[in-house]
Amino acid sequence: MPDHAFFGVIPYLPSPTDAAGEIDVAALTRLTHRLIEQGVHGLAPLGSTGEFAYLDFRRKAQVVETVVAAAAGRVPVIAGVAATTTADAVAQARAWHKLGADGILAVLEAYFPVSDDGVAGYFTAIADATDLPVTLYTNPNFQRSDLSLPVIERLSHHPRIRYLKDASTNTGRLLSIMNRTEGRIGIFAASAHITAAVMLIGGLGWMAGPSCIAPAESVRLYELCRDGQWDEAMTLQRRLWALNEAFARFNLAAAIKAGLRLQGLDCGDPLPPQRALTEAELAELGKAMGRLGLL
Amino acid sequence: MPDHAFFGVIPYLPSPTDAAGEIDVAALTRLTHRLIEQGVHGLAPLGSTGEFAYLDFRRKAQVVETVVAAAAGRVPVIAGVAATTTADAVAQARAWHKLGADGILAVLEAYFPVSDDGVAGYFTAIADATDLPVTLYTNPNFQRSDLSLPVIERLSHHPRIRYLKDASTNTGRLLSIMNRTEGRIGIFAASAHITAAVMLIGGLGWMAGPSCIAPAESVRLYELCRDGQWDEAMTLQRRLWALNEAFARFNLAAAIKAGLRLQGLDCGDPLPPQRALTEAELAELGKAMGRLGLL
Amino acid sequence: MPDHAFFGVIPYLPSPTDAAGEIDVAALTRLTHRLIEQGVHGLAPLGSTGEFAYLDFRRKAQVVETVVAAAAGRVPVIAGVAATTTADAVAQARAWHKLGADGILAVLEAYFPVSDDGVAGYFTAIADATDLPVTLYTNPNFQRSDLSLPVIERLSHHPRIRYLKDASTNTGRLLSIMNRTEGRIGIFAASAHITAAVMLIGGLGWMAGPSCIAPAESVRLYELCRDGQWDEAMTLQRRLWALNEAFARFNLAAAIKAGLRLQGLDCGDPLPPQRALTEAELAELGKAMGRLGLL
Amino acid sequence: MPDHAFFGVIPYLPSPTDAAGEIDVAALTRLTHRLIEQGVHGLAPLGSTGEFAYLDFRRKAQVVETVVAAAAGRVPVIAGVAATTTADAVAQARAWHKLGADGILAVLEAYFPVSDDGVAGYFTAIADATDLPVTLYTNPNFQRSDLSLPVIERLSHHPRIRYLKDASTNTGRLLSIMNRTEGRIGIFAASAHITAAVMLIGGLGWMAGPSCIAPAESVRLYELCRDGQWDEAMTLQRRLWALNEAFARFNLAAAIKAGLRLQGLDCGDPLPPQRALTEAELAELGKAMGRLGLL
Repeated sequence: MPDHAFFGVIPYLPSPTDAAGEIDVAALTRLTHRLIEQGVHGLAPLGSTGEFAYLDFRRKAQVVETVVAAAAGRVPVIAGVAATTTADAVAQARAWHKLGADGILAVLEAYFPVSDDGVAGYFTAIADATDLPVTLYTNPNFQRSDLSLPVIERLSHHPRIRYLKDASTNTGRLLSIMNRTEGRIGIFAASAHITAAVMLIGGLGWMAGPSCIAPAESVRLYELCRDGQWDEAMTLQRRLWALNEAFARFNLAAAIKAGLRLQGLDCGDPLPPQRALTEAELAELGKAMGRLGLL
Repeated sequence: MPDHAFFGVIPYLPSPTDAAGEIDVAALTRLTHRLIEQGVHGLAPLGSTGEFAYLDFRRKAQVVETVVAAAAGRVPVIAGVAATTTADAVAQARAWHKLGADGILAVLEAYFPVSDDGVAGYFTAIADATDLPVTLYTNPNFQRSDLSLPVIERLSHHPRIRYLKDASTNTGRLLSIMNRTEGRIGIFAASAHITAAVMLIGGLGWMAGPSCIAPAESVRLYELCRDGQWDEAMTLQRRLWALNEAFARFNLAAAIKAGLRLQGLDCGDPLPPQRALTEAELAELGKAMGRLGLL
Repeated sequence: MPDHAFFGVIPYLPSPTDAAGEIDVAALTRLTHRLIEQGVHGLAPLGSTGEFAYLDFRRKAQVVETVVAAAAGRVPVIAGVAATTTADAVAQARAWHKLGADGILAVLEAYFPVSDDGVAGYFTAIADATDLPVTLYTNPNFQRSDLSLPVIERLSHHPRIRYLKDASTNTGRLLSIMNRTEGRIGIFAASAHITAAVMLIGGLGWMAGPSCIAPAESVRLYELCRDGQWDEAMTLQRRLWALNEAFARFNLAAAIKAGLRLQGLDCGDPLPPQRALTEAELAELGKAMGRLGLL
Repeated sequence: MPDHAFFGVIPYLPSPTDAAGEIDVAALTRLTHRLIEQGVHGLAPLGSTGEFAYLDFRRKAQVVETVVAAAAGRVPVIAGVAATTTADAVAQARAWHKLGADGILAVLEAYFPVSDDGVAGYFTAIADATDLPVTLYTNPNFQRSDLSLPVIERLSHHPRIRYLKDASTNTGRLLSIMNRTEGRIGIFAASAHITAAVMLIGGLGWMAGPSCIAPAESVRLYELCRDGQWDEAMTLQRRLWALNEAFARFNLAAAIKAGLRLQGLDCGDPLPPQRALTEAELAELGKAMGRLGLL
C-alpha cells in the first residue's frame, strides 16, 4: 500500500461572496487562517459546498489564488475541478496547478448520461493534465453520472489518481471500493457518513463542510480514531452528529455560511436563486451549534 | 385569450462544432437555411439538444449570432438561456436580445434544490431583463428543480412569460397547465409527447430535435392537426413516432448530429465526454430514417 | 387486426366494505346496477381502485361473485388477478372463471425484482389457466416489476392476451406499444392519461376509477371520441379532467368511496391503515364534483 | 437504558420449499439445528429473505411452528409479521404468539402510500396485539411506505416496541435513530450495512440472510466487536464483506437457498416467478464462498 500525502480533516470551504456576487477575498483569507490555526490537515476549496456550480472561471480562479496565498504552504490545498466537458476540466486543472494548488478534486458535471468509457476518459484527462494528485468525487445525489465500481477500479491504476471522496450515504460501498482498489486509492468520507465508522474501516479522513464550523472538534475526533480510542471517539462522534444532521436538512452552502456568520465570520449568502436560511432555520442551526459549544 | 406570435414546428437546433470544439458557423448557417426552406415556423438554438450545458458564453453567443443572421427575420429565433445563477441568466438574456433574438427559452440549471420562491424569482428576473417573450422550459428528467403547477400559474401572470415547453412524458400534465393558465400560456410539446395528441388538447406546436431531421414531414403533421384532419394526422404521426423512439434511445445531441450527417450535413460530434453514436446505433438510426424516406 | 370484444368505458369498481372489513354485497350490487343503467360498457372489479392488495381470497371471490350476479350478463365483467406467485395467480384466474367472469385483468405483485422471463412466464401461466381473454396491467408507479416493451410484444402473440391497460402517465408509450403489437393488443387508458388523446391514437377506451363517479359523462366522452367529434370531445374532456386531477391527489380507493358517498351510495372507507379523506379533502372533492354537476 | 433480551447474530431464515411449493419441514428443522449449533443468538423466520411476500397464512404458520419446535427454547425465535391491512397483521401476530414465538418482526406492506399516522397506527396495533417484544423493520428499497424518524421516535415510547432492524444502506441514519430514541430502541443491522461499523456506533447485532451461510464466522465477528477487538474485527469483516456483496447482486432468497445447497442442505428454489440462480451466478457465489472457506 502506498502511503498517502493527504489525510485527516480537510474542510470543504464555502466561497464567501459580497452583495454583487464577487468573491470576498478578505473573508476567505480569514477563514483559511482560522481553520489552519485550529489544526486542520488540508483545505478543499470549490467543492459542492464551495458553490462550484454557481461560479464562473474568473471567480473560481480567485478562490484558488486566495486560499493558496493564505495557506502559504502550511497545509495542502486541494482545489475542485468540475465541468461538463473534458476540455473545460483540463483547462481548470492546468490553471489551478499554475496557481499553486497541491491537489485536484475532480467532479463530472453531466447533463446527458455518460457511458463508463466517457467517465473514465474524463477523469483520466484531468489526471494527465498536470502532475498533481487527483481525488475522485462521487455523489449519486447530485451527479447525474456517477462512477461505477468497475470504473473506479480502472481509474485506480492511474499513478496520479490517488484518492476518492464519496458523498453518498452508503458506507458499505466504501468498503467495497477499498477491497477492490487494494490501497491504491485512499478514501475520504463526506458529511453523510459517520466519520468514525469510515475511519474504522480504513478511511484516511474526511472532506466535509461542517468541519468549517467545528474544526478543533473534528481534529480531536480524527486523532481519537487514528489512535484507536474508539470509545472516546464515539462519545464525541455521537455529539457532533447533530451538526451533520442539521447540515443535511439545509442547503449546504447556506448552512455553512450561516454557521460561520453566527461565529462572527461573515461570508455572505449563497448566490441566488439559492436563498439564505430563514429565521426559523437559523434558530435551529444556532441551537444545534450552541449545544455543542460552537458559539 | 391572447393570440400567440410563436406556433408550429420550431426545431431544437444542434450546435455544430469542429474538432477543436469551436462552433461551425458554416454548418449552422446551412442548417438554418435548410430548415426555413422546408417550412418550419421558428428556430430554437441553445436548447438541451443544442448542448447548452456544454458551451461557454462565447460559443453560445456565436450560436445566437449565427442563427439570427442566417434566419434574417424570415422566422423567429427563440434562444436558450440556461444558468445556475440568476445573474448569469439575466446576462445571457440581455446579450441574446442585443444579438437580435426574437424570444427567450428559459431553463433553470439547479445544482442544489431550489424553493418555489427561488424558481419564481429566477424566471421573473429573466422576463424582467428584456422585452422579449419568454418560454418556460420544464424537464423533470434533466432539471434538478422543476416547475410545480402553482409556480407555473404564478409566472403565467407575468406579461412577458407567454409560452411553456414541456420535456416530460406526462401529457396529462399539459392539460392541467392549460386549464390553470387559461390561455395566458401557450403550450409546446417536446419529442417525448405525441405531438398530435398535444395539438388535440390545444397545444401551439412543438419544439423538438427530431424536426431537424424531418422538417417537411413535421410541418405537414402540424398542418393536418391545425386543420382538424385527425385521421390523416394520426396516419402520419404513427409513422413519424419511430423517429421519436429512436432519438429517445440515444444521447439527443449525438443522434441529431448523426442524423444530419446521414443527410449530408456534417455538424460534428457531441462534445466529449459525450460520445458519437456507435456503428450499431448509427445503423439503427439510419434504418429508422430510411423507412421514413428521410435519406 | 382482430376485432375486440371489450371497449368503451369500463369503470374500476371500489370494493365496498363494512366496519368489520367484510364486503358490503348490497352496496356493490347497487353500484353495479347504477353503472350499467348509466351506460358503461363493462365492469372491472379488483383493480387497484378495488383494493385488491388489501383483500384476502375469500373476500375477492365474494366481490367477483357479487358483480357477476348483479351484472347478469348485461356487460362483461373483467376481474382482477394479482399475486406475487404464479401459483396463486393461476388459482385466482381459475376461480374467477368458475364464478362467471368474462375476462381477467392480470397484475404482477413483485416483492423482489423479476426478470423479463419471469414476468413473461407469470402472465403466460395466467393466460393458459382458462379460456378467458386477458388484459395486461402495467403500472410503473405501484408495481415493482413493470412490463418492458419487448415482454409486451412477446406476450401479445398469445392468443388469449388481448388487451393492455396502462396506469402510467406516459401517453407516448401507448403509441409505442400499439406500433409494436400491430393490433394484436387493444389498449385501454387509466385515469392519468387524457382519455380523448388515447382514443385519438387508437385506444379502445378506458378502465378507470373516476368513471364510477361520472359514468354518463364518461360514456358521452367515449361516444364523441368514437364518432370523431373531437372539438366537442375536448370541450367535455377539459371539464372532466378536474375529476382526474382530484383523484390523482388522493388515495384512489378513499377518493372513489368518498365520491360515491357524496352521491348517496355508501361504500364504507378504505381498509386501515389506509384512511378516509379528511374533511378538507372531502370538501375539495365535493367542490370539484359540484362544478361538474355530479352531486 | 433498558437492557435488551435480543442481541448478536440472528440469521434471517429462508423458507425451504418443495417442488409443489409446500414448506419443507425437514430442511427447515435441519437448518435450525445447524445454526444453533454454530452459536447464533436467535432466529428470524419470515423476513424478506424468508419470502414472506410469497407465502400464504397456512405456510407462514407452518414455518413458525417448525422453527419454534426445532429451536426448543435454546435461542429466541423472532417471527415476521407482514401485511397490507392492520387486521391481517394483528391476526398474524396473535397466531405466531400462540405458536410460541418469542418476538415479532413487524413489516408494513403498503400498496398505496400511507400517512405517518397510518404507519404509527399499524405498528401500534401489532404491539398491542400480544405481549411479545416488537422489532420494527425499515426498508426503503422494498417497502413503499417507510418509517420516518419522527414516527420511529413516536413508536419508541411503546413499552413493547423495543428493536429496529434497518435494511437500507444508510448507516448514518442508524446513528440518528439511536440519538433520537436514547436507548429505548435497540438497533440491528441488515446485510447492506457493515456490521462492524454498526456495532461500533452502538448496535446490538444483525439480522441478515448471509449469516445462514457463515454462522460461525458471523458469531466470531460479533464477539470481536462486542469485546472491542476492532483490528481483528475489521480483518474478519473485510473478508466476510465479499459475501454481503455477492448477496446484494442476486435475489436474496435465491442466493441463500443456493448457498445452503452448496453446503449440502437443500432448501429448494425460490417460488416462481422468482428464479433460481443461473449456472454463472452459482459459480460466482461458489467462488466467493470457497475463498472464505465456507464450502
